[in-house]
Amino acid sequence: MKDIQNLPDFRKINIKKVGVKHISYPITVLDKENTTQKTVATVNMYVNLPHHFKGTHMSRFVEILNRVHGAINLKNFHTILSGMKEKLQAQAAHIEIEFPYFLKKNQDGQTATVEYICRMHGSLHDSDDLVMELRVPIAAPSPIPAAAGLPKSLGNWGVAAVQFRFRRFVWIEDLIRLIESVTCHNLSWPEQTGGQEELSVEGLTRDLGRKLRDHPDIRGFKVNIKNYAPGGNTFAELEADFTRPILQTGA
Amino acid sequence: MKDIQNLPDFRKINIKKVGVKHISYPITVLDKENTTQKTVATVNMYVNLPHHFKGTHMSRFVEILNRVHGAINLKNFHTILSGMKEKLQAQAAHIEIEFPYFLKKNQDGQTATVEYICRMHGSLHDSDDLVMELRVPIAAPSPIPAAAGLPKSLGNWGVAAVQFRFRRFVWIEDLIRLIESVTCHNLSWPEQTGGQEELSVEGLTRDLGRKLRDHPDIRGFKVNIKNYAPGGNTFAELEADFTRPILQTGA
Amino acid sequence: MKDIQNLPDFRKINIKKVGVKHISYPITVLDKENTTQKTVATVNMYVNLPHHFKGTHMSRFVEILNRVHGAINLKNFHTILSGMKEKLQAQAAHIEIEFPYFLKKNQDGQTATVEYICRMHGSLHDSDDLVMELRVPIAAPSPIPAAAGLPKSLGNWGVAAVQFRFRRFVWIEDLIRLIESVTCHNLSWPEQTGGQEELSVEGLTRDLGRKLRDHPDIRGFKVNIKNYAPGGNTFAELEADFTRPILQTGA
Amino acid sequence: MKDIQNLPDFRKINIKKVGVKHISYPITVLDKENTTQKTVATVNMYVNLPHHFKGTHMSRFVEILNRVHGAINLKNFHTILSGMKEKLQAQAAHIEIEFPYFLKKNQDGQTATVEYICRMHGSLHDSDDLVMELRVPIAAPSPIPAAAGLPKSLGNWGVAAVQFRFRRFVWIEDLIRLIESVTCHNLSWPEQTGGQEELSVEGLTRDLGRKLRDHPDIRGFKVNIKNYAPGGNTFAELEADFTRPILQTGA
Repeated sequence: MKDIQNLPDFRKINIKKVGVKHISYPITVLDKENTTQKTVATVNMYVNLPHHFKGTHMSRFVEILNRVHGAINLKNFHTILSGMKEKLQAQAAHIEIEFPYFLKKNQDGQTATVEYICRMHGSLHDSDDLVMELRVPIAAPSPIPAAAGLPKSLGNWGVAAVQFRFRRFVWIEDLIRLIESVTCHNLSWPEQTGGQEELSVEGLTRDLGRKLRDHPDIRGFKVNIKNYAPGGNTFAELEADFTRPILQTGA
Repeated sequence: MKDIQNLPDFRKINIKKVGVKHISYPITVLDKENTTQKTVATVNMYVNLPHHFKGTHMSRFVEILNRVHGAINLKNFHTILSGMKEKLQAQAAHIEIEFPYFLKKNQDGQTATVEYICRMHGSLHDSDDLVMELRVPIAAPSPIPAAAGLPKSLGNWGVAAVQFRFRRFVWIEDLIRLIESVTCHNLSWPEQTGGQEELSVEGLTRDLGRKLRDHPDIRGFKVNIKNYAPGGNTFAELEADFTRPILQTGA
Repeated sequence: MKDIQNLPDFRKINIKKVGVKHISYPITVLDKENTTQKTVATVNMYVNLPHHFKGTHMSRFVEILNRVHGAINLKNFHTILSGMKEKLQAQAAHIEIEFPYFLKKNQDGQTATVEYICRMHGSLHDSDDLVMELRVPIAAPSPIPAAAGLPKSLGNWGVAAVQFRFRRFVWIEDLIRLIESVTCHNLSWPEQTGGQEELSVEGLTRDLGRKLRDHPDIRGFKVNIKNYAPGGNTFAELEADFTRPILQTGA
Repeated sequence: MKDIQNLPDFRKINIKKVGVKHISYPITVLDKENTTQKTVATVNMYVNLPHHFKGTHMSRFVEILNRVHGAINLKNFHTILSGMKEKLQAQAAHIEIEFPYFLKKNQDGQTATVEYICRMHGSLHDSDDLVMELRVPIAAPSPIPAAAGLPKSLGNWGVAAVQFRFRRFVWIEDLIRLIESVTCHNLSWPEQTGGQEELSVEGLTRDLGRKLRDHPDIRGFKVNIKNYAPGGNTFAELEADFTRPILQTGA
């Protein structure tokens, strides 16, 4: 045990972060099909502060949000973050937003409006960094061939939460389709058991990892697959090149 | 359109209910296997007040809870409610509690501790009334026979929420087993399609209704079956003799 | 105890309600300032079914929502509900929606975008019925006069949840302003104690009740005021003419 | 832009974590006043896996929890974690639990049972590591002197979330009292404004940081103070010596 009498007395008590959380705000995001889409976000904004800073105001953060009229996308993240750094005289600025993103899909001859939860965390210190997360629900697999007496839904199997860092712009729609190309599947059972691995959290995690690894516009990623079960969930997680790049000179 | 000038001006502005909500409180409930079980409840307590009443205090409600040392069960609900009526000079008293109830089950040679959400709403006006609700999760059905390559969990199919009024005391364990005798099922597929109706919210709701109708200790009930699906849930609901009995002379 | 052997054996097991819950859907609502406002709703839709009905599909409900392109307001509720009754051959149809409604306010020389939770429950049996609920946050009262050293926020005091039935159309903005004219207040303390009653759940509930009672366009209402406190909340509730009108011949 | 054709093709797709989440489980924790306290926890357990691992089962994790009969405390975390490492042949094991902890307090001559949310994250790689987090609610400050007409509660001001690493065992009660010695305060207003700084998130964060820095049994800590406001919260955060110690040879 260290002699605590000899602890350095300069253990500094500086505020590291200051900001606002859980602001509900209507936003406009980019949409491949319709150019833009209006939705509602929960927003966190905060800055890293130097030692001597005194006091912060929610209104200073919200004012910056007002300036862009809620248009939040990969393109003006930099503008928002620069505004925060400048206005609050900070070394680093962060904005986190979470919102439902809607995609129209054709299901059984009907148009269904499907919701996906999207999160973005943009930060600006010496350089920009942006992480996007998509949460894509995974339906319970249906047996093949579909028999007459089959129920309408076999329930929720789980959810895929995937975080990305990009090399260049990718549409949210394309990312969702990429994930669903792995997570939407039927259960070829009992004749074939080749499909079994895809139904475990480990199997789906690896399959999705392999798919993302080969995408030219994705710099790094983190995959978390969760399987619901009454009484608890199982999960598996992997990541590839997901550490924040240092000494980056622009996004 | 009525002439609002002629509305009676004695539209009374009396407080109808006053009380406390969302108090977290450790409680002891009855347990068939182990006599009692300690758990944590969220408690609401409120009274109907006469016109002239002035002011209420959270401490008055909590004091009554302290008196019984958190022992909350069908037997001392009456004591708690009488205490509330008397202490707050009220015409009617209500207590609502919600808590996780744990049941040990043998699953694949292992002991699993399974959680069920239980709610009780006791009220005392001229006579006592008690409604209990149990929420029993429904797992996604597994194909039969279980093949080697089957996943560990096919996810969550849905949930059964059942409300009861009783004729006489019934153990929570026995109610859970009764519900699960209907909701736990395998999917005999594709050879047999006889089981198909049980997999619809309507089918399960009716099957469970028939089962409860025949139970001698259950006075009335309400069944709500929900089936999860990515993007929304479907549900069906029925009730039988569930209106609060009037002019009852004791529980 | 009744002799249960003699219970009528025709205790019917009929589905009472069937439908969909927790559908997330982008909607457009009416906005006094900007004509319309886009937001995101959680939608429940269900019907009361006759005995002989067999099976329901989520898509049948969602199709009706798609038809109006998410335009949901007091004016087309009737259209949606009629569509549900007809399409599902039901006796009664219900739609419940909950959404954040945003209002721009001037606070300390800044534009703040404030969120209010709005719920609507429309139903159509023989006649239409519509209940709207608004949840308006109540800030902790600031002492008067505001001293130099005062904190930026004294926290959240509580929330007012008000349900309305209307005689004629009223803007959401006007309802919010009406509620806030009662719930926004400062604490004239300690010199004056006249303001004390407004700071109790009972006082605020009565004050708001009196205000709503005098509004010509409000047919009936229910007021619930909650005061947060660490460890639980206190609340008071009143209602006036809030029972659903019977034999109404149109909204 | 890097030439992606030349990316190393050995970008590995290995599972990094596998385990169970959100298991609800009744536990027993240490309690200074009563030796032990029974409560209900939400449990996550996971391991870091080597490349060649195949498949995991929720039951393997739960079995380890069953072995200690839900007795979870600083003393047997090591036993649980070793069991996980061994049983799952893992390099590192983690257990996260969150539970309400109850403390009896004397408030206005009454015994109040106050709830605090407690989280523990224990991990075992080469050495043990344990982080405890306590969430302590902060009531809105009351004016001094308390006048006759004062409301019962001025609402919730915010919450203090404090994470700790310890040098030696500290009782949860003592940590709560330490935090509340800073966060419970009255508003000496308007005569004195000396108390003003304590009412800002920055002031409270610094005050609490100074207090914790001087505690001999606390190795490192992170303080996050949140102030609720209608429409969003403000927060400030600091940490001291909170990086996980490397090459530690025992807790």
